[in-house]
Amino acid sequence: MSYSDAGVDIDAADTALDLSKQAIKSTRTPRVIADVGSFGGLFDAKGLGENPVLVATADGVGTKIRIAAAVNTFDTVGRCLVQHCINDALVQGAEPLFFLDYIGTGKLDPSMVSTAIVGVAKACEDHGVALLGGETAEMPGVYPDDEFDLVGTLVGVVEREHIIDGSRAKPGDVLIGLPSKGLHTNGYSLARRIVEERMEIAYTDTFPGEERTAAEVLLDSHICYLEHLRPYLKRKELSALAHITGGGVAGNLPRVLNGLGAKVSREAVPEQNVFKQLCQYGLVERDESWQAFNMGVGMILVVSPEAGQEFFDDLTKRGHSPFFMGEITDKEGIEWLD
Amino acid sequence: MSYSDAGVDIDAADTALDLSKQAIKSTRTPRVIADVGSFGGLFDAKGLGENPVLVATADGVGTKIRIAAAVNTFDTVGRCLVQHCINDALVQGAEPLFFLDYIGTGKLDPSMVSTAIVGVAKACEDHGVALLGGETAEMPGVYPDDEFDLVGTLVGVVEREHIIDGSRAKPGDVLIGLPSKGLHTNGYSLARRIVEERMEIAYTDTFPGEERTAAEVLLDSHICYLEHLRPYLKRKELSALAHITGGGVAGNLPRVLNGLGAKVSREAVPEQNVFKQLCQYGLVERDESWQAFNMGVGMILVVSPEAGQEFFDDLTKRGHSPFFMGEITDKEGIEWLD
Repeated sequence: MSYSDAGVDIDAADTALDLSKQAIKSTRTPRVIADVGSFGGLFDAKGLGENPVLVATADGVGTKIRIAAAVNTFDTVGRCLVQHCINDALVQGAEPLFFLDYIGTGKLDPSMVSTAIVGVAKACEDHGVALLGGETAEMPGVYPDDEFDLVGTLVGVVEREHIIDGSRAKPGDVLIGLPSKGLHTNGYSLARRIVEERMEIAYTDTFPGEERTAAEVLLDSHICYLEHLRPYLKRKELSALAHITGGGVAGNLPRVLNGLGAKVSREAVPEQNVFKQLCQYGLVERDESWQAFNMGVGMILVVSPEAGQEFFDDLTKRGHSPFFMGEITDKEGIEWLD
Repeated sequence: MSYSDAGVDIDAADTALDLSKQAIKSTRTPRVIADVGSFGGLFDAKGLGENPVLVATADGVGTKIRIAAAVNTFDTVGRCLVQHCINDALVQGAEPLFFLDYIGTGKLDPSMVSTAIVGVAKACEDHGVALLGGETAEMPGVYPDDEFDLVGTLVGVVEREHIIDGSRAKPGDVLIGLPSKGLHTNGYSLARRIVEERMEIAYTDTFPGEERTAAEVLLDSHICYLEHLRPYLKRKELSALAHITGGGVAGNLPRVLNGLGAKVSREAVPEQNVFKQLCQYGLVERDESWQAFNMGVGMILVVSPEAGQEFFDDLTKRGHSPFFMGEITDKEGIEWLD
């Protein structure tokens, strides 16, 4: 009996790596110490700052990957993974440094795997992040043949005095939302059930109220807010940042408020067709929908009242579409205003 | 329709986290900046060295997880994951700093998930590694209900001048092997097929030639070689280190030899019953077995000939069981001596 008899194809893994090599190479930043061994990636950490603090975060793309699989389009989920992780480090004030990816699958399809890795690499390159390492594992039985999971870890750095931790948040601070582009990477188990069982459409069919297919709508890339927010990261008026991921506004905003609460206007958030349709077809209750989905809010800035308008105007001038959506209160938890 | 209707149980994830919290907390090292936000873990990187280089590595435990699932014992795979990753950073000379874990599963069982995380945390604590973050994702459909994958990323640090990269390796250097304890985390897809289809025993049955069950034998922990090797990491006589993982001695030793090769005596490696039985029952050809399994070699030190005996004696004196297993040649690739 041989290893390949047992469902593990080492050649397929090598082919996938060969197909991705050039894209991975393109992510090299000056701090990457290249071609030195291959068990671990090497990153020069000299002079990262006066008091550098590393910020590390791990995440996956959830069952968005199943929609990618349904239409055989894996580059966007690779991009989503990186951009999601950059946001998670960003909300503590960090610039991203390097990334590692992991792909687990039932039966390794080199083209599928390399497309996902190239998607990861391109997003890394766009944001100046080194793709320092990764692992692809063929695990027959753990995954069905045509399923796979895509996971990543990002390490960034922030100067200690510029850590954003919500400790500056105080009642009266205003909430400025930045639009998401669709679901980002959360709520897909629910969204898929609604599309498949209530809308009863295929992912290649047109999505209700759109000119694009369901797959196109649901595979929109997770927005990376690094460029949006970079000018404000060292501003004391920025009290906190909340990345709206699993748990929605209700689950994520309280995480950064140090025991304070917030009044939030849901009407102030520009409605996106994808959420409207999913909630209508799925008969999803309003409060439930604000936990399962981001509902159009990708990131929330908590800003001192004096600087709120300035931040808003500057974001607008720079081509983003901010919206005021509430304020901080001294009562723990979220109070919906409407 | 609600999120839980779609198979995602947020409460189960919270319960799993609650069950693991204490163990995670115990891994805190002085460099962890605790209780500051929760989107990313914070690690003080000030004064890590004169010319610090971060070494990052991502890996999983492969289908060893399926044996853990078969006997509902998840702590050892958590430990294996951490110890595997520490070894991968160690072979470039790095001390481990922090770790992040990811668990993906079809249906989140809080007790199962927390047992795995506690296993991860205990191993981190044992080796002075901070468990800085992690993610647990319930992904119905991507994983069958009772399957899960366990993945981790480790970041370590090495002083630039002490990076071990094989560049010092030269013909005549001796190979000193350190024993593995069974399969570590590789070759499980093949091993499981042999146990299930050729031995035709359950994992709770006694393994041939042993007094332990098949599960006990196959779940032996991946040895961490940090303590074994720490005294030698800054010694110039240590030319290279090879961690024997997927691909076996044949696949891993050449990775660190910079185009040189090695003559290897397989007879010099103490035979372990688990490999003997697997190869006999599975009719695994000899060369194949040395690619699919570590065959009893967990780590190989490449040492200059003058220092070989000293390293060997010191390892022996410190209670390890090294064995000489060959030498470096100028001909690329592995030449089996027997």
